[in-house]
Amino acid sequence: MMFSQRVFCGQLTADDLGRKVQLAGWVDALRDHGGLLFVHLRDRSGIMQIVFSPDVVPDVCQKAALLRAEYCIAVKGEVTKRLAGTENPHIETGTIELVVTELTVLSESDALPFSVSEKTMVAGSASTAGTGRVSEDLRLQYRYLDMRRQSMRDNVMLRHRIFKCVRDFLDENGFLEIETPMLTASTPEGARDYLVPSRVHPENFYALPQSPQLFKQLLMVGGMERYFQLARCFRDEDLRPNRQPEFTQLDLEASFIDEEFIYDLIEDLTVKMFAIGGISLSRPFPRMTWAEAMETTGSDRPDLRFGLCFEDVTDLFGDTHYSIFRQIIARGGCIKGINVRGQSGKLSKNVLQNEYAAEIAPLFGAKGMTWMRAEGGRLESNIVQFFSNEELEGLKQRFDVADGDVLIMVADASYAVVTSALGQLRLHMADRLGLIPEDTYCPVWITEFPLFEATEDGEVTSSHHPFTAPDRTDFDPENIEELLALRSRAYDLVINGEELGGGSIRINDRAVQRKIFTALGLTKEETKQKFGFFLRAFDFGAPPHGGLALGMDRTVSMILKTPSIREVIAFPKNRSAACPLTGAPSSVKREQLAELGLLNLGGKDVLPGTAEKENDIDRISWVSRIGIAEDERPVMEKILAQAETMARLAADNAGSEAPIRTVAPAAARMRPGIEAKRSPLGESGQLLKSAPAVKGNYFKVASILE
Amino acid sequence: MMFSQRVFCGQLTADDLGRKVQLAGWVDALRDHGGLLFVHLRDRSGIMQIVFSPDVVPDVCQKAALLRAEYCIAVKGEVTKRLAGTENPHIETGTIELVVTELTVLSESDALPFSVSEKTMVAGSASTAGTGRVSEDLRLQYRYLDMRRQSMRDNVMLRHRIFKCVRDFLDENGFLEIETPMLTASTPEGARDYLVPSRVHPENFYALPQSPQLFKQLLMVGGMERYFQLARCFRDEDLRPNRQPEFTQLDLEASFIDEEFIYDLIEDLTVKMFAIGGISLSRPFPRMTWAEAMETTGSDRPDLRFGLCFEDVTDLFGDTHYSIFRQIIARGGCIKGINVRGQSGKLSKNVLQNEYAAEIAPLFGAKGMTWMRAEGGRLESNIVQFFSNEELEGLKQRFDVADGDVLIMVADASYAVVTSALGQLRLHMADRLGLIPEDTYCPVWITEFPLFEATEDGEVTSSHHPFTAPDRTDFDPENIEELLALRSRAYDLVINGEELGGGSIRINDRAVQRKIFTALGLTKEETKQKFGFFLRAFDFGAPPHGGLALGMDRTVSMILKTPSIREVIAFPKNRSAACPLTGAPSSVKREQLAELGLLNLGGKDVLPGTAEKENDIDRISWVSRIGIAEDERPVMEKILAQAETMARLAADNAGSEAPIRTVAPAAARMRPGIEAKRSPLGESGQLLKSAPAVKGNYFKVASILE
Repeated sequence: MMFSQRVFCGQLTADDLGRKVQLAGWVDALRDHGGLLFVHLRDRSGIMQIVFSPDVVPDVCQKAALLRAEYCIAVKGEVTKRLAGTENPHIETGTIELVVTELTVLSESDALPFSVSEKTMVAGSASTAGTGRVSEDLRLQYRYLDMRRQSMRDNVMLRHRIFKCVRDFLDENGFLEIETPMLTASTPEGARDYLVPSRVHPENFYALPQSPQLFKQLLMVGGMERYFQLARCFRDEDLRPNRQPEFTQLDLEASFIDEEFIYDLIEDLTVKMFAIGGISLSRPFPRMTWAEAMETTGSDRPDLRFGLCFEDVTDLFGDTHYSIFRQIIARGGCIKGINVRGQSGKLSKNVLQNEYAAEIAPLFGAKGMTWMRAEGGRLESNIVQFFSNEELEGLKQRFDVADGDVLIMVADASYAVVTSALGQLRLHMADRLGLIPEDTYCPVWITEFPLFEATEDGEVTSSHHPFTAPDRTDFDPENIEELLALRSRAYDLVINGEELGGGSIRINDRAVQRKIFTALGLTKEETKQKFGFFLRAFDFGAPPHGGLALGMDRTVSMILKTPSIREVIAFPKNRSAACPLTGAPSSVKREQLAELGLLNLGGKDVLPGTAEKENDIDRISWVSRIGIAEDERPVMEKILAQAETMARLAADNAGSEAPIRTVAPAAARMRPGIEAKRSPLGESGQLLKSAPAVKGNYFKVASILE
Repeated sequence: MMFSQRVFCGQLTADDLGRKVQLAGWVDALRDHGGLLFVHLRDRSGIMQIVFSPDVVPDVCQKAALLRAEYCIAVKGEVTKRLAGTENPHIETGTIELVVTELTVLSESDALPFSVSEKTMVAGSASTAGTGRVSEDLRLQYRYLDMRRQSMRDNVMLRHRIFKCVRDFLDENGFLEIETPMLTASTPEGARDYLVPSRVHPENFYALPQSPQLFKQLLMVGGMERYFQLARCFRDEDLRPNRQPEFTQLDLEASFIDEEFIYDLIEDLTVKMFAIGGISLSRPFPRMTWAEAMETTGSDRPDLRFGLCFEDVTDLFGDTHYSIFRQIIARGGCIKGINVRGQSGKLSKNVLQNEYAAEIAPLFGAKGMTWMRAEGGRLESNIVQFFSNEELEGLKQRFDVADGDVLIMVADASYAVVTSALGQLRLHMADRLGLIPEDTYCPVWITEFPLFEATEDGEVTSSHHPFTAPDRTDFDPENIEELLALRSRAYDLVINGEELGGGSIRINDRAVQRKIFTALGLTKEETKQKFGFFLRAFDFGAPPHGGLALGMDRTVSMILKTPSIREVIAFPKNRSAACPLTGAPSSVKREQLAELGLLNLGGKDVLPGTAEKENDIDRISWVSRIGIAEDERPVMEKILAQAETMARLAADNAGSEAPIRTVAPAAARMRPGIEAKRSPLGESGQLLKSAPAVKGNYFKVASILE
């Protein structure tokens, strides 16, 4: 058959009745109907029912009798109307079928590891089962079969559409897509890098980019003004359900702009992307400061599809007799609560007290949870007798309480504990009570993040990264309190409690950048060493600029409503960062490792002479892989001195003998009949502290010890 | 200033006269004209002359006096017409200028390592110098300044345009862009892989893809039908001038198609891409079989911008008296030549004989070169007296000789030597004589490549890869001669002697694939081990499919006429695969290597117990890194037995003492007063044969020995 004449199954409609066409694709399903053979032929565009009738072409029917699921075939035939009553509403072409006159089997299929077909052939019956009961690793191992399923194929096609939409939109807005390197330098901060050994430069490594952050800022210094990239990024982190070692992000940056430019651009784009999934978002997206989000939802990525927002009630209990609240307030703590409106019927006293207060709230980090139910105009609970009438009235007013409402409150000396625990209770209750509406999308910009966070040793560290612009530049870099009060010009786009992306306006002024580094406690030398080439770029007229990165796997997954991001990635890794299809990662030939100089990295830094300051005792400890306790050191030093003296004496008396060049083996074995004794060094983990690697509860020891 | 009101320099025209606008960008050049300060303000869109006049705003002029090249500034002012005679034809906005009323210095610039400005401010004078004399490493180290130059910026912008064109075109043609993994499995064949150590799976490695070849075929098996990707690919090869460790290729594949589909699609696309560079290509592109290309140009990527095609003249010399030709023909050789028309004046006898015949032709692998010049209707040369009149007449006819023509001929017993040498002479002469027209583009499809090549040991190997479809499938896989005569369904797109891309129709039939593997001498087991998961996919109804990959860096470089592909890559590596900007590749922290399990790979295979068959003596040799000579082995075995006996005796008499857990150091030193003796093991390189790594003339030895 000539493929140039082929048409797609999904192109055919009732307008084509009587037309002779050629189709090609896969056998989705078969049904033998007493001589007549019906086949669902599937190609990328859809499904067409084809009919083999012994009345039309007996020899073709004989050949067709050998067809099995997922055979790849081409057919010629005539488009005809289905008999009344046999139409199939499950497929687009359900009112027509092709009566086959010619069949070519292009290739056969073995029996399948799982079913591919998703469309029933019989009108009225439900769709055939999906892959719900197939293990994900099996699906990934046979991904090429998995993606023949219509649902997976739709995911791939719509991902393409969404990516195309991004590119078209940004191109129209003057953005250039510029490719940045994949083989680049290890970044000073952030997550763990994937490293790539260099063959040409032994013992040196490229790093795969965690993001093109430095490059996109350099492009702005380079005058590109508007850059974007749908960039592959890499993070060697322990996998969580919705994380992949490699992922795709929309990375963009623009010069001579401010936050409003980013908000406007990204809202416009987000609306367009979600529209591809049939989801309509309205603009402008609301904005919420970080402080407001924490204050009302306990989260910097608040899910706004439902209420349950916090009220602060600390002020109501200034003079309370309830000792727990009194003590907490005395220690500078706070009390916040949520009115779970009208849910009293679903939240029994038992559930509130024995589940939430006793188990769930402590799980979320709270010491407890106070609850009250509104009935007959009054608040009731197991502790309501400890509160004054004014306090109870205050609560009723503050929470606008009506009968059937349930109040839950968390009190703690720590603001962070209250907001975090209550925030998790908020999500837990919304989920349990079914308060989260389906097909609702609530985007929100979170703004004004803290620029710095306090570290445990009383200093500050950047919340985002040290190039994020502060809200004001007249701060004193030595004043920790002032630093912690600074807000950054960063922003996150959050939808339904998921952070889809974020970014910031960057610092472009050298003096401000220097103040930030001073605040971080970095000297000029340290700064240069850590950020060297990047900071140098800012010495040459860096423009004001800012940008954003959007996680595309997550965004597409949300638009397509898939249970995991793996459903929108053609060939994802599984939860242990492996690929069941290709077997990656895998072992490689020893020759490859040798060529990359990877076989003797271990000895590198400890070759005597290269580490001159190293102490002799420490060196012996390292070489033997056996720890030497502090109180053993004087003894060891004495032994070492004796051994050296002995060696010198031996050398003086050696005569003219040549040095030996072979050695005798040391065979260390357990002495029979002797019970092993515990060593205090062993107990404390100090015994093999010099071992180069530790796995679980075991030390790995070098072969020479065994 | 509010950036939202900013307009781009390049947007302004004479229509804007009198308009008050805000501009932002960089100081490209300055000229102080007696109080008046003229500045070329440059942004991404172009250059606008801005004028600071003390009559308009004295205080702004004071500030402006401090401006230097590449300061980043924003200005407000009014668009005015330039005085007659001061127009600048070098810039688009050369008839207007902006009279500044407000100036903001956004950031200052240090003195530049090289000049950025490319546009002169003075009408009539030539453009300012480019970066011709700046070293490329310096340009790459300050790439962010280098790309501010208008020519580099244009390259980046046009690369974006070309990529956008590819994506739009393929999208319109039903192709889906699908991302394939970067962290994947090491491929069995091809160039050297870049490896990425896995932390989660110690001693296992991902490989960066050399191309998405396997994945794109799997996508076809997966029913995606039309796939493309602008894919980053990686090859750890020694760099040649126009190669990069990472490069971008247009990778595409389609199902239910044949060669004509690919030709049609790619020609259409190529015409569109080249049009972006103002280059018009006409369709259809000519096609040439591989055999024809070799026969007429000696190359499988022929440059067709000029003639100089080969004629075979072997048949003219069947009975020649010229002994060199006679002997060559007797040995089954051939004689081919080129008529270099009308170039006799530029190719003196001296050049032909002493340069080409004596030096250049041997350099290209020929034993010699025969030449003749046509003058006064006769062929002349230093050997013309050896030829008969018939032979000379035959040459004149075959080459259609006219006065002023020069014939060059190469004869050799080897067809490959004749075509290769003459092919290189062809290019050399075309270049020397200026016969290659500028701005001419001659695309050609090369088809019908040999499917197999002979190996030195009398077997065959795939010319392309083993999945390329043969031109016929009825061959005998054991018949080497028949195999070598097979042609493949592969095709290359060549323009001006450069291969821009290539591909093939693939095998989708298991039986044919099996025959190919048989032909390659691979057993079923070997096949499975080598291609395992990939071949398994073809057991499930693989569709007929084929595709192509196009080197985008090379294509863009050709369209933009840049001297190297590095000019069309934002952040390329230099010729030693390093990045002068970021310093990649670089050393990393020892902790990172330890975490990746890279510190003890060397000992891996020889851990005692894992290699059970290993001999005790060999193990001692390995552990000590000292070779043991064959005649020493019996002695060592005896010593070993004695030592074990002694250890056993010691153990028997050990009593209840706990084993020691610290060791004494072994200090090996040269004994003073003793002359070193040469060891025969050392001379032969056997002494340290067990050393794990060797560098130059030295063995690397582990720290424990020193």
